[in-house]
Amino acid sequence: MTEDALRALCAEIPALDPELAARTQARLDGKTKPRRSLGKLEDLACRIAAFTGQATPKLGERAVVVLAADHGVAEEGVSAYPQEVTAQMVANFSRGGAAINVLARQANARIVVADLGVKAPVEPPPEGVRALRVGPGTRNFTREPAMTRAQALQAISVGATIAGELHASGVGLIGIGEMGIANTTSASALVCAFTGASAEEVTGRGTGIDEAGFLRKLDAIRRALALHRPDARDPLGVLAALGGFEIAGLCGVVLGAAARRVPVITDGFIASTAALCAARLEPRAAGCLLPSHRSVEVGHRMVLKALALQPLFDLDLRLGEGTGAALAMNLVDASLRILDEMATFEAAGVSDSGR
Amino acid sequence: MTEDALRALCAEIPALDPELAARTQARLDGKTKPRRSLGKLEDLACRIAAFTGQATPKLGERAVVVLAADHGVAEEGVSAYPQEVTAQMVANFSRGGAAINVLARQANARIVVADLGVKAPVEPPPEGVRALRVGPGTRNFTREPAMTRAQALQAISVGATIAGELHASGVGLIGIGEMGIANTTSASALVCAFTGASAEEVTGRGTGIDEAGFLRKLDAIRRALALHRPDARDPLGVLAALGGFEIAGLCGVVLGAAARRVPVITDGFIASTAALCAARLEPRAAGCLLPSHRSVEVGHRMVLKALALQPLFDLDLRLGEGTGAALAMNLVDASLRILDEMATFEAAGVSDSGR
Repeated sequence: MTEDALRALCAEIPALDPELAARTQARLDGKTKPRRSLGKLEDLACRIAAFTGQATPKLGERAVVVLAADHGVAEEGVSAYPQEVTAQMVANFSRGGAAINVLARQANARIVVADLGVKAPVEPPPEGVRALRVGPGTRNFTREPAMTRAQALQAISVGATIAGELHASGVGLIGIGEMGIANTTSASALVCAFTGASAEEVTGRGTGIDEAGFLRKLDAIRRALALHRPDARDPLGVLAALGGFEIAGLCGVVLGAAARRVPVITDGFIASTAALCAARLEPRAAGCLLPSHRSVEVGHRMVLKALALQPLFDLDLRLGEGTGAALAMNLVDASLRILDEMATFEAAGVSDSGR
Repeated sequence: MTEDALRALCAEIPALDPELAARTQARLDGKTKPRRSLGKLEDLACRIAAFTGQATPKLGERAVVVLAADHGVAEEGVSAYPQEVTAQMVANFSRGGAAINVLARQANARIVVADLGVKAPVEPPPEGVRALRVGPGTRNFTREPAMTRAQALQAISVGATIAGELHASGVGLIGIGEMGIANTTSASALVCAFTGASAEEVTGRGTGIDEAGFLRKLDAIRRALALHRPDARDPLGVLAALGGFEIAGLCGVVLGAAARRVPVITDGFIASTAALCAARLEPRAAGCLLPSHRSVEVGHRMVLKALALQPLFDLDLRLGEGTGAALAMNLVDASLRILDEMATFEAAGVSDSGR
């Protein structure tokens, strides 16, 4: 994908329809319940209508896209887990044993697992895992850019293609998830670059690193920001300097889905940061985003705020993989069924308070 | 039901098994995810195991019990809606058009609707609604006790019987919900009596009353507390003085379910207050309770705190009917599937951080 092709993809993304959002709220106000008493479920229904352009949205099938890749910055000792866990977990996804497998089954969602650049992939490739590798992990961004602009574009293109294929095969709702040892370090650096926040404000414990590791993580992010001096007006450059292949890939999933009016459910800190990259490349892409949870990771609050997303639940999750997105699919269904199936005051013969 | 029979029912309720909770957490710690990274889902699985006594809980079918009744205190002008809405909504439940019908269908839960004492019931009784009436609504508790102790016992007995029948027919998970114009006034008064909080601290806007109505509501609660001087050491007396038939009924559902090791998902302010009544009658009953949402209604925070329940989500709901409980069933399923279906580090060949 060239930068021109990326601009062309972004140009396809439609804007939210505020008039349809207002009409949807008016319909909900006529249902047999006090006005706005279903709170964020009502907001969800309005947003989905406004983005899909459907008055009574039918989303069809759903999928969770889980992209995995390794991070050069892992060699700075920023994670509680060894780097080979990325490839081991990809094999676990393939066998159906990870949390996202369980929760995607429960949500009746297909799961698409792709290797965007695990350092040492399992051979032969695990069954059902798509090898769409951009490279053997990113470079250590405390020393050099994590990837080239061309690699960032390649990863975005891979993600956008996955979204397009899913849409073509009947999928109308996508959850995004990731796996990559050290990727909270990458996401923290990206959020600093995009929001101007300091490393201290954004950085958390990831999968559970100890105090010494946490200090190494903070130091790695600070050094990377000082080295690359990322310019938020060049989102692709920021992504190339500090991102990961799976993060750039999920950014592409968001852009590809948005271009086809497919809503995307964000997940935790890393997937939400990928969505933020997409929104910085094309602000209209934010219209396709549906929130799920607020994770324990401190930087997640900042990303959700930057995306103007209100989380739906707060289960103290900090796993990633798309687990929060899969759990939120039930609430998306609930919001659309309320819109479609509930009786009106008039039809049910129930007295309305008028408020 | 006599007071002796109530004591006998309470005596059947088992205690949580802390050893099984600890063993469940240890099993979860062996699954392929960072320790505790599924947060409150892990807590849910541990609590369900500890209460049901099952190492890998299988709950069977699920139901939402929606009890409806009218409140004499409605004549004080404390609700945004006219009193006939209670009976109208019971008819709406019968036809499947209310929010709880939609969400129970989605959760694959049976719905049990019972009229515990609507003031002017629809004739003939709507199809599928069980007429288990204790009286034509409670009395106005600003002037006299809402009900007699015998009526409170009758309503508790009705609820406990429903729970017993559901258990006998294969139901292993119950959500509780209610409908009753003016019942936030009753619940607010009960919470004041049980926790010692003031009317100002507990009272909210219910279905959306205006400022003048809110002041009437506060005044009604204050007058009732001054009149009855409720004694928290006599929970049955508190319930009789200030409660509603549907609240006492749901208290009975909790006690009946708890005696059979059936977990109960609470809902919003009123259903949670009914659960608090049960926990004050028998503290072990609190062990069966699973949280769902935190509602907009201010008093709900106080009730959840008194029950030591952490809400799972916060969707700005303020509808009742069991809507939050139905939405939470998906999270209960998720927690139990994680426990049952996820691979261990050992089986999956994934390196553990040891933390």
